[in-house]
Amino acid sequence: MKTLVIISHPELEESGSQQFLVQAVDDLPDVTLHHLEGRYPDGKIDVKAEQALLRQYDRILFQFPFYWYSSPPLLKKWQDDVLTEHFAFGYRGDKLNGKDFGMVLVIGLPEKDYQTGGAEGFSISELTKPFQAMAKKVGMDYVKPLTIFQFPYKTEEEKMDLLIQYRQYLSMKNPDSLKSREEWLLKELDQTNLETLPEDQASFILEEVVELIEDNRMELDELRLHIDNYED
Amino acid sequence: MKTLVIISHPELEESGSQQFLVQAVDDLPDVTLHHLEGRYPDGKIDVKAEQALLRQYDRILFQFPFYWYSSPPLLKKWQDDVLTEHFAFGYRGDKLNGKDFGMVLVIGLPEKDYQTGGAEGFSISELTKPFQAMAKKVGMDYVKPLTIFQFPYKTEEEKMDLLIQYRQYLSMKNPDSLKSREEWLLKELDQTNLETLPEDQASFILEEVVELIEDNRMELDELRLHIDNYED
Repeated sequence: MKTLVIISHPELEESGSQQFLVQAVDDLPDVTLHHLEGRYPDGKIDVKAEQALLRQYDRILFQFPFYWYSSPPLLKKWQDDVLTEHFAFGYRGDKLNGKDFGMVLVIGLPEKDYQTGGAEGFSISELTKPFQAMAKKVGMDYVKPLTIFQFPYKTEEEKMDLLIQYRQYLSMKNPDSLKSREEWLLKELDQTNLETLPEDQASFILEEVVELIEDNRMELDELRLHIDNYED
Repeated sequence: MKTLVIISHPELEESGSQQFLVQAVDDLPDVTLHHLEGRYPDGKIDVKAEQALLRQYDRILFQFPFYWYSSPPLLKKWQDDVLTEHFAFGYRGDKLNGKDFGMVLVIGLPEKDYQTGGAEGFSISELTKPFQAMAKKVGMDYVKPLTIFQFPYKTEEEKMDLLIQYRQYLSMKNPDSLKSREEWLLKELDQTNLETLPEDQASFILEEVVELIEDNRMELDELRLHIDNYED
């Protein structure tokens, strides 16, 4: 699976969270990071080049800071310019059909604020409706967004956890499924020489393996319970 | 009530609907139209000037074509640049508190497409959540948007109706209340010399008066029914 990450951030170099994410995936061969403000500093988007790029990938992601509950202006301009009729929708506008669409949202406030009655008053599922509608319109499969709340307050362990989640989000077909996570982890382990890794990373990968085995056991236990019920 | 209409449209001169709207209100003394792309052709927004402008008005409206279920890029940039902490939210960020916020949305597809199961799949109420959240955050009162679907297909009579709705939306405190509409119409009639108007406009205003009287009668009838029920 080939993944294109369209990053929009007016000051990418200044953003700790974005720098962390960029470095987290620089070894993944099937992932391309595409920073719009870096590529188009004058704001003039090369529509043909962007459309040609989109065709090469199976999963298209938007990655941006969730300012005012939406994308930075250049990503909106990209939508308006690149997702044209006859390319993305309308007659023969099927060029994005069947691809995955997802988002990596960097959010400054805590998750609990995003609900009815919370400080922000609306959930992320509500606030991202315009992007859900876009995915529907162009025939893409909407993948649950990866939301990153209050990055600067994260502990080292939380950051490591985020790193794994992010790598999975960019390279796994179904990041929520246990089977996919298992396959992904076995592949990662196969490519990794634990002895050459810094100790904290090695132990972290081992923790992930343990967690996965535990999840597997829970699922097996649950299945066994179901079978017992049927036999009664 | 003083109203500021912040218009965002990359090609205002080319838009029939926007030209119609601009001309519909050029005689209203308490309404200011503020076209962002015209004012800032290089995209660099004068934040202090914009914040000073906002303070002078009681109702702030965003008027734009609803491309990809959101605003054009320059209006998003305006939000990101102008609605700063300590001005619009946060400590002492109360400068917009209590003002009205509304939107005039120009939409290319028919209204029936915007619902669950419809071609677009989402309602306008769902797709405008990010703006509702913005209004909440800055303490503004969210006014039901004025939605204009498929302007080019409107008949002359529908356009006249839109003209009245739009003028009311820009100058009436509660555009939905019968009492407000009554007062507004009496004021308009007071200022208008019917004999100098083109015949179609004069007859249209008379139709509005008739409609208002009918609405009044219906409301009175309904009240009478309630009273009868109580007396039984």
